[in-house]
Amino acid sequence: MNKELVIRLLKYRRILTQLKSLGFDRVFSNNLGDAIGVAPALVRKDFSLLLLGGNKRGGYNIDYLAQQLDSILGKTHEQKIIILGMGKIGSALAQYRGFRQGDFEVAAGFDLNAKEITPECPCPVYEVSRLPSFVEEKHIEVAVLAVPEENSADSFKLLKEAGIKGILNFTPLELKSSAQCLVHNINIGVEIENLFFQVVKNGMAGLDLTEDELYQED
Amino acid sequence: MNKELVIRLLKYRRILTQLKSLGFDRVFSNNLGDAIGVAPALVRKDFSLLLLGGNKRGGYNIDYLAQQLDSILGKTHEQKIIILGMGKIGSALAQYRGFRQGDFEVAAGFDLNAKEITPECPCPVYEVSRLPSFVEEKHIEVAVLAVPEENSADSFKLLKEAGIKGILNFTPLELKSSAQCLVHNINIGVEIENLFFQVVKNGMAGLDLTEDELYQED
Repeated sequence: MNKELVIRLLKYRRILTQLKSLGFDRVFSNNLGDAIGVAPALVRKDFSLLLLGGNKRGGYNIDYLAQQLDSILGKTHEQKIIILGMGKIGSALAQYRGFRQGDFEVAAGFDLNAKEITPECPCPVYEVSRLPSFVEEKHIEVAVLAVPEENSADSFKLLKEAGIKGILNFTPLELKSSAQCLVHNINIGVEIENLFFQVVKNGMAGLDLTEDELYQED
Repeated sequence: MNKELVIRLLKYRRILTQLKSLGFDRVFSNNLGDAIGVAPALVRKDFSLLLLGGNKRGGYNIDYLAQQLDSILGKTHEQKIIILGMGKIGSALAQYRGFRQGDFEVAAGFDLNAKEITPECPCPVYEVSRLPSFVEEKHIEVAVLAVPEENSADSFKLLKEAGIKGILNFTPLELKSSAQCLVHNINIGVEIENLFFQVVKNGMAGLDLTEDELYQED
C-alpha cells in the first residue's frame, strides 16, 4: 500500500469512531469522502480494492468497516509514543487534544531540564538520561523529536541507539530515514515558505489541486 | 515546478544563509545534498534545470545562488503571517525559533480570549473580531490555523472571508483547498498513526525510501 492510501485509511478509521459516538450504524461513501476531502468514487475504489463490502442503498456497516480497517492497519496492540524535547512545541504536543482521537498515548516526555517543565503536562517528564531504559522497558517504537536545532543531531543518534523505529521530526534539521529508523520530517518554516511561494509567486492559477480536490470545491 | 522541487529550493536557500553566516563563499553539491538529505546528483540536476551555474572544482558561488533562488522563489516583498488560535500549539508556533531562519515573521496572533494569553508571546495577540481589518490593513496572505477542532470550520470560513490565500492547518479537521485559498493540512495524529503502521505492520522492509534516501544512509 502506498503512503497516500494508508493515510486515507487512517482518516476513514478516525471518522468511523466519531460517527459511532454520534449513534450512527451505517455510513455512505459520500459522507466519508466529504469528511476527508476526497471524491466518493475514491472512497469506493479504496474499499473495493481492500474487498470491503457495501452497497449503494445501504452504505457501509460502521462496526464491520472499523474492524476490517483495524485489521488492515495492524491496530492490535497498545500504541505508546514518547516526546524528546519538552520545550514549547513538545509540551504543546503532549497536551494536544487531537491525539486523543488516535489509538495511542504519550507515555512520557524527556528533556535535559525535566525539572523545569510546567506541572500542567499530562504525562510524566523525565531526564534524557532515562530515555534508553524507558524505551526498552516499555517497548516504545515511535518518538516525536522537538528539541532545539542545535541538539537535533545528538538527539536523533540517542533515539536510534535506544531502538526507536519511527520518528516524527519537528526540528528544522532534515533527518534521514535508514533501514532501522523511519523519519518523517515536518519542517513548519519550509511549509509556510512553500505556501507563500504558491500563493504569491504562482498566483492561485497554478495550484496543484488534484482532480478530487477540485471536485470537492464548494 | 512541482511541490517537491519548490520545497528543495526553499531548503537550499535556508542552508545558504547559514553557510554565509559561517563565512563561506562557495558551496558544493555534495554539501547541499547532505544538508537536505538528497543525492548530490539531484542537487546538480535541480540547478542545471534552473540554469544556475557552478563547476565541479569550484562549486557554486553562494551569493549568486542565493540571489537567483530568491528571484525564482519570488522572495521580493515582506512576508508576514498571522496565527489564529493562540492555545498551546499556536503560542508554541509564535515562539518557534525555526521561523527566524525563514524570511517571514508572525505579525500577530488572534484568539477568542486574547487577554488570557501569556505575556511571553513575542507577537501582539488580539481578539478574533479584529482579524478581518488587520488582514486587510497589513495585506496578510498566509495564516496558521491552530484552534480547537470544534472551532475549525468557523475559523476557516473567517480566514477565507478575510481574504487569506494560504493556510497551514494544524487542526484535526481536514480543510479543503479552493481556487481562492490553498490549504496545507498537517494532521499530527494521523502522521503518528502512519508511523506506527509503517513500523509495526510493515516491519522495516516495506519502507518507501527513495533511491536518494537509501543512497544517503549512514
